[in-house]
Amino acid sequence: MNEAIIYLDPDSRLSLQAQIRQKLVEGIVLGAFPVGQRLPSSRKLAEQLNVARNTVVLVYQQLLDEGYLISRERSGIFVNAAVLEGRVSFDGKSRTQLYKSSHWQQRFKHTPMMDAEFLPPPNWQQYPYPFIDGYFDTALFPAREWREASRLALGMREINEWAGESGDADDAMLVEQIRTRILPRRGIQAGPDEILVTVGTQQALYILSELLVDSTVPVAVEEPGYPDLRRMLARRGAPLVHQPVDDEGMQVDTRLDGCGLVYVTPSHQAPTAVTMSMERRRALLEKANQQDFLVLEDDFEFESNFLQQPHPALRSIDSENRVVYVSCLSKVLSSGLRLGFIVAAAELISQARRLRRLMVRHPALNNQRAAAFFLSLGHYDSFMMHLHRIFRERWTELRLALNFYLVEHFETTRAQGGTSYWLRGPDDMDMDFLVEQAARRGILIEPVRHYYATENAPINCFRMGITGIPTEKIREGVAALADLLQQLTRGDADTWQQWSGYALEGEILRSALCESTLLCKTVYGDPCTIKLLADGSMYGRAGYANEDTDTGEWWVDGEFWHRRWRRWSYGEEAVYRTVIRGDAIKWFDRDYKLVESAVVRPAQGVDAIRDDLD
Amino acid sequence: MNEAIIYLDPDSRLSLQAQIRQKLVEGIVLGAFPVGQRLPSSRKLAEQLNVARNTVVLVYQQLLDEGYLISRERSGIFVNAAVLEGRVSFDGKSRTQLYKSSHWQQRFKHTPMMDAEFLPPPNWQQYPYPFIDGYFDTALFPAREWREASRLALGMREINEWAGESGDADDAMLVEQIRTRILPRRGIQAGPDEILVTVGTQQALYILSELLVDSTVPVAVEEPGYPDLRRMLARRGAPLVHQPVDDEGMQVDTRLDGCGLVYVTPSHQAPTAVTMSMERRRALLEKANQQDFLVLEDDFEFESNFLQQPHPALRSIDSENRVVYVSCLSKVLSSGLRLGFIVAAAELISQARRLRRLMVRHPALNNQRAAAFFLSLGHYDSFMMHLHRIFRERWTELRLALNFYLVEHFETTRAQGGTSYWLRGPDDMDMDFLVEQAARRGILIEPVRHYYATENAPINCFRMGITGIPTEKIREGVAALADLLQQLTRGDADTWQQWSGYALEGEILRSALCESTLLCKTVYGDPCTIKLLADGSMYGRAGYANEDTDTGEWWVDGEFWHRRWRRWSYGEEAVYRTVIRGDAIKWFDRDYKLVESAVVRPAQGVDAIRDDLD
Repeated sequence: MNEAIIYLDPDSRLSLQAQIRQKLVEGIVLGAFPVGQRLPSSRKLAEQLNVARNTVVLVYQQLLDEGYLISRERSGIFVNAAVLEGRVSFDGKSRTQLYKSSHWQQRFKHTPMMDAEFLPPPNWQQYPYPFIDGYFDTALFPAREWREASRLALGMREINEWAGESGDADDAMLVEQIRTRILPRRGIQAGPDEILVTVGTQQALYILSELLVDSTVPVAVEEPGYPDLRRMLARRGAPLVHQPVDDEGMQVDTRLDGCGLVYVTPSHQAPTAVTMSMERRRALLEKANQQDFLVLEDDFEFESNFLQQPHPALRSIDSENRVVYVSCLSKVLSSGLRLGFIVAAAELISQARRLRRLMVRHPALNNQRAAAFFLSLGHYDSFMMHLHRIFRERWTELRLALNFYLVEHFETTRAQGGTSYWLRGPDDMDMDFLVEQAARRGILIEPVRHYYATENAPINCFRMGITGIPTEKIREGVAALADLLQQLTRGDADTWQQWSGYALEGEILRSALCESTLLCKTVYGDPCTIKLLADGSMYGRAGYANEDTDTGEWWVDGEFWHRRWRRWSYGEEAVYRTVIRGDAIKWFDRDYKLVESAVVRPAQGVDAIRDDLD
Repeated sequence: MNEAIIYLDPDSRLSLQAQIRQKLVEGIVLGAFPVGQRLPSSRKLAEQLNVARNTVVLVYQQLLDEGYLISRERSGIFVNAAVLEGRVSFDGKSRTQLYKSSHWQQRFKHTPMMDAEFLPPPNWQQYPYPFIDGYFDTALFPAREWREASRLALGMREINEWAGESGDADDAMLVEQIRTRILPRRGIQAGPDEILVTVGTQQALYILSELLVDSTVPVAVEEPGYPDLRRMLARRGAPLVHQPVDDEGMQVDTRLDGCGLVYVTPSHQAPTAVTMSMERRRALLEKANQQDFLVLEDDFEFESNFLQQPHPALRSIDSENRVVYVSCLSKVLSSGLRLGFIVAAAELISQARRLRRLMVRHPALNNQRAAAFFLSLGHYDSFMMHLHRIFRERWTELRLALNFYLVEHFETTRAQGGTSYWLRGPDDMDMDFLVEQAARRGILIEPVRHYYATENAPINCFRMGITGIPTEKIREGVAALADLLQQLTRGDADTWQQWSGYALEGEILRSALCESTLLCKTVYGDPCTIKLLADGSMYGRAGYANEDTDTGEWWVDGEFWHRRWRRWSYGEEAVYRTVIRGDAIKWFDRDYKLVESAVVRPAQGVDAIRDDLD
């Protein structure tokens, strides 16, 4: 035997015994150890590999028991010829490859649309600032708890339940857990016959589009919206109504009249993260009843309203059983496990089950049982809380950073939660270029064109998510993005040189600001009012209901205006140059880059200041 | 706290600690322990439950850490109100259920066909004689080895690989294992870009029918054949050619001309278990090249030829890359895990991957990784050998029993392996009735009507499988089935009373048989020749090439003829009454039931015997 064949990796997650076994089996199966060749004695092999002899003895014994090896008295241990029986040898004839690509193209019927899509680089976790949504850093996976649940699902009694052929049934324990633990959080009551487990949300949507849609059923989808859903509906030949989204979610108006199905993501609209208002929800259900359409509610990201109590799911306030509810366990349990579910009228679930059986029979039953244990032990609830805490922290941190670094150039949609922000920049800013340049600097942000079906895609928007980036990297990443933006927009309007106003300094600056009120806007669109008092203190209020307030101090030092909030803007001292024109005030940093702007209401009137200047 | 809420199950697979945790969490989540209510001290709860105090302390500590409970100094432990935050209460409004079944029916587009199908009872494992194919007794599942593989797949390094979002990629380690361990056994070479993992064979077929078929593509399917495949093709509107199956597999003739795709199960035709001959395989590929159609090879049950070396897969002898090969890991690894795969030209795999992404993204990645470890540790190979041994044993045992008990009424197709037999009875025997009556006696056999698309379904056939029944129950089960048949056919032809011949006994019987040659057929259609010698010995040869021989002895005792083989017929003594008419001989048992028949070639000629009798 060639000694080089067995190399033991000291960093392997396999035990020495398992490694030796793996290598020996590989050698046998691939023919490296020919049938009839004697293997080294356990003593000799142990010496060669520098392992305890007993380790080799155990491996040999196991392989003898399993028939890989045979022992011949007084001659030693050999590869068992029977192992290789029943193998068909490859005849070595290589294919003429008659079928080249062009031939294959003719064979494909109804291939998926090849329209634009966005996939982050496979090594996104190695980027310093991955602001992409829906890609989780695996550090968030509840490894210990999932291991416990998996171990329980591998008990003999459990195996007996999931290893046999189940026909088209789901794991009853999982269905019960979804019914009693997950759905009540969303205000939904459902019987076991109203729940179907699916291979992720993706399969839920696919099954429903196959079942409920064809070329005679107009379907309304959100614009911007989920591209894969449009692809599924296109396969069915459905006429699509691209319904715009505003700050209250998908618009409800006469364009929905005549639709057979309306797809909506009320919790956090995908991709704008807007939460649908209660008024809009009621209007949608009323329209559904009046126009007799079904509503497909995709609650893929439930329960992450960070600013107020979450709204109830549409299905929970639907009195006519027209809402088909779709969600998943992937936010907690890794989308690698592929577990989603549909909740709907029993008639619909029964048909969906038939179709699922035809497509895949059922989602993997061992994972269903493990997820059921995970839920029943309370790990789902506690990990959901944990994730909620982390995501709120990250989301708030990103909100803070956007407001600090990007307030002058961007605005976000009015999100109340979710795991992403939708940012809108100056009208003429080309985000494709920004996305590309940012990636070169290690900052991953998401372009938005692929979310649009119509020509309405704005060129000046992008998305930033927080599922894959730790809290402590967020400020750094946004600062780096702001730096990049400054470089890219250098020479544009609003630079120190181009903005024609009066640069104030010293006593004139002090008296211009003293007792004045500054009106500005946060990056997320809330108004913010700042009062500068004569004693050098200042007071700020933000939000429509002034829900956020802070205090701080300000002073003038030569050409620079200094300010420091107690909490806001990281509680750090900021140093600005100030330029004023009419009642518009702009602040630039030491490098003459625009940082912030406001409308000023001076105590003594703008004209008085101007008089001083003239 | 209501003490009754926590009941500890001594038979539970959960530890006491896990049980207490589960019950406490349940009580908290479902509101059995109201917020603000003090929980009993660990000492008190431990006393109530009769467990060690430390067990309760550990549970409390964990729940405190996770935020389910809060500890208030000097007052005790309470349910944390924060746990229930973010829940939406059900408003109690019950649905008016406007949508009754009739309304829903209008909503469904392209629902799966509702034609006949057969599902065994869910509790089939509790039947004494479950002769149904494809349902595995879970005792066959390699529990220990799968646990080991699962444990490895739950290492932190592994989780980092599968818990993130993979886009549409499969686990590279599993693909490599399929490529290097499974495919070479079938003579197939494939690159990683020619392999796609699927949610079982079912999804492989579904994807291919979506991708390659529409109403312009005639598809040939086997008749009888796999009903779900016909359902998939019907959804695509494909014109179907129902191609008959004979003893060499699917027929290859001009009916295949003009087809775009031909579906075939060459290893063991589903459902007749016939293995396609090499000649037929070559003819099919030649026809494919000539007519330019693709071949979809479903190798769902590879490598179980018990009588000779397995034939190579069609894909391994296809020189034009037109064969699309589909198989699965389910025969070894439980169909509950849902792992199958497609091997085909890279162009096709690339499109199939796009479609799979749209449908389900990918099969569960944790299971892919665990299966990869299972394969790499050699467990797949060794368990395959193990299963092969067991199935060969069962298959041979069933063959023996059929031949012993049912030879007079049935014949099987000429199967060389697989896990089932296809039996054909007398033309006028209604098998639906037999299936139903057998089930009442604890014998599950499978009707075959649902395998037929056309009117050609025979009423006199059924199937018996061995995947779910242990070897030692097979003879008993077949004997019970033979008993039932005798009861059901009582009063029919071929009973003692109705068969008009001469009942021989004593010396006449002895001299009629002495030195004679008996020609009979086995239940699987092989000829069998028995020579009865004057010294009371006998010699038998079975098979077309006389591949099976045995010796035994015979004697006459009054009205009974006795015989005992050394191996055949279980080596047991059989006792028969003998009736002869012309050169036809029939044996009846003590209860006057027909057991066996043959053609006799007497040493002295039939006429001589008749002379003696007259």
